[in-house]
Amino acid sequence: MPSPGHPAEADGTEAIETDALVIGAGPVGLFQAFQLGLLELHTHVVDALPAPGGQCIELYPDKPIYDIPAVAACSGRELVDRLLAQIHPFGIPLHLGHLVRGLSPRADGRFDIATDRGLRFTARAVFLAAGVGAFVPRPLKVPGLEPFVGHQVLHHSPGTDALAGRRVMVFGDDELALAETLALVGDGPPDTPPHATMRPATVTLVHRRDAFSASPDTVARMRAACADGRMRFVAAQPTAIDIVDGQLAAVRLACADGTDLTEPVDVVLALLGLSPKLGPIADWGLAMARKQVVVDTEQFQTSVPGLHAVGDVNTYPGKRKLIVCGFHEATLAAYGAAQRLHPDRPVLQQYTTTSPRLHQLLGVASRS
Amino acid sequence: MPSPGHPAEADGTEAIETDALVIGAGPVGLFQAFQLGLLELHTHVVDALPAPGGQCIELYPDKPIYDIPAVAACSGRELVDRLLAQIHPFGIPLHLGHLVRGLSPRADGRFDIATDRGLRFTARAVFLAAGVGAFVPRPLKVPGLEPFVGHQVLHHSPGTDALAGRRVMVFGDDELALAETLALVGDGPPDTPPHATMRPATVTLVHRRDAFSASPDTVARMRAACADGRMRFVAAQPTAIDIVDGQLAAVRLACADGTDLTEPVDVVLALLGLSPKLGPIADWGLAMARKQVVVDTEQFQTSVPGLHAVGDVNTYPGKRKLIVCGFHEATLAAYGAAQRLHPDRPVLQQYTTTSPRLHQLLGVASRS
Repeated sequence: MPSPGHPAEADGTEAIETDALVIGAGPVGLFQAFQLGLLELHTHVVDALPAPGGQCIELYPDKPIYDIPAVAACSGRELVDRLLAQIHPFGIPLHLGHLVRGLSPRADGRFDIATDRGLRFTARAVFLAAGVGAFVPRPLKVPGLEPFVGHQVLHHSPGTDALAGRRVMVFGDDELALAETLALVGDGPPDTPPHATMRPATVTLVHRRDAFSASPDTVARMRAACADGRMRFVAAQPTAIDIVDGQLAAVRLACADGTDLTEPVDVVLALLGLSPKLGPIADWGLAMARKQVVVDTEQFQTSVPGLHAVGDVNTYPGKRKLIVCGFHEATLAAYGAAQRLHPDRPVLQQYTTTSPRLHQLLGVASRS
Repeated sequence: MPSPGHPAEADGTEAIETDALVIGAGPVGLFQAFQLGLLELHTHVVDALPAPGGQCIELYPDKPIYDIPAVAACSGRELVDRLLAQIHPFGIPLHLGHLVRGLSPRADGRFDIATDRGLRFTARAVFLAAGVGAFVPRPLKVPGLEPFVGHQVLHHSPGTDALAGRRVMVFGDDELALAETLALVGDGPPDTPPHATMRPATVTLVHRRDAFSASPDTVARMRAACADGRMRFVAAQPTAIDIVDGQLAAVRLACADGTDLTEPVDVVLALLGLSPKLGPIADWGLAMARKQVVVDTEQFQTSVPGLHAVGDVNTYPGKRKLIVCGFHEATLAAYGAAQRLHPDRPVLQQYTTTSPRLHQLLGVASRS
């Protein structure tokens, strides 16, 4: 259902022109796109995560939610699937894996938006549905490490092929971190056992203490891999790095047993999970209160005309961080934007139950 | 699922004490009850119609609605059934077929509420979810007729038994009006053919012109009943009544053909359909704008503290008469009321996904 990309993504040179850009593909962002579709505004959606769903998918994909109106119980995953089905008729492109870095208003009232991967939009209205912020990999905090991110410091494993013969140090303690580590040393899923020749030269797992949040079974498999020499675990914290010829050459560790260690590395995998980050939004000059974007309750517009904020990212008197409230906010924001973009005529409110035009847009047959 | 009544309904002398009373069992009223249930406020619901659902059921029970979030398409009936299922765990009594007549605030901040059928409530908070008003039978407008309503003028047929031997005049032209008329003259559903002895003495159908909104088939059956003398149709409008010994004795008709007619009657059936009526609400002294109740957007409270208004009955800047907006309004109204009723402590916002207490209230097992 999500569009696999847009022609302009390839080179990133040409901006996508659109009526509306929704930043955030969580439940509120998706319903925002639906309401914009009903009002016939041309809409694109962008999200930092590789899949739609936002917090619902990141935090509790399989736990039931009980307070979506008229949906007595559904998992976060089901909720997102239902919303994707609902916006399907509009064919709205979802640009996933793009973190919005910059947003700047133009004199003509439009906005220029750019992502970290070079995608650019020019939008007449922007809907910030960013929740608690973009979910980005939690950084490994060691002085001087930042310039190596994306080259020698990675937030996901590039696979055994790419790491063959390299000295790899993994930071992390959760299920995903240990599973990716085991995959590197020949203990992955049965259908993908890497040949010995394709393995990293060494794999060292580092966590501040000898206790893990991964499942006991996964921890046991990791300990077995240590026992037979395929990998090593060190309980330690990183304190500094050594740089040789502009390359990250070693990581210095303060071990839990009180000793210090300098460990040569070629690649560091920082698998510390994701954390939400309001990121660049905080720098856009919007009126804020307690890290939330201040909006009115008439069209959920920020202090910048044409820039709306809906869902957990916003605040106003009485605000509750509930999905049901975000759905309402998105609805009034869509009407507010439609009115602003067509100041010459009042925006007609039609009912999906009776409007032949809306039936046409939704691709359903009108019944008299 | 709806409670079949409350012990206090029988005699109507003792008021039902409750934290919250929701007036209106349409979708927004039902979700209002759900949110109050989550916040552990003891709640009752009252509605003038004999079944829950409000406008959704009265206006379009079987037409699909497409803009309920995460519900790509459902009929009004399905929507109401889903909401009833959602509030089921709270065991909230629904008092149906009761039209709220009076509401008066007490000095202690509570409200006294009375219905047309003698039901009384004392509530600490009231939620007006009355939509476009209570659906009440459309009155037959003839000077002097009003005092006979409920005795000789009825808004639904009491059946052939009660009308045996009486002279009956029916006003109406829709499917229901013609079907009830046919039932009186021995053309009802096959399993309930009245015996000739149980029939009214005469049945006269009156409509201003010889054209009907009922289905062609039903109209054809009505004409057949006229042809064989079981009933009579007169295209006419009522202009006056004759009263003899304090009883309604005849109705004067101005016929479509220009003649006048005085028709003796024992019973008038005014089957003119239902129309929404804001009714007594307009007399409660609330701040109003264009026949809507003015509310704030923080807790959707009216100009009377403790009296909230949600859904189509209210207005505020940006208001859209959409069900999705009513769901939000009901949510913030519930929090507002909970805070007012417990001023000593902040109302805790818990998530249904994670709160063991909410899982207990909803009757679902907590998962870690």
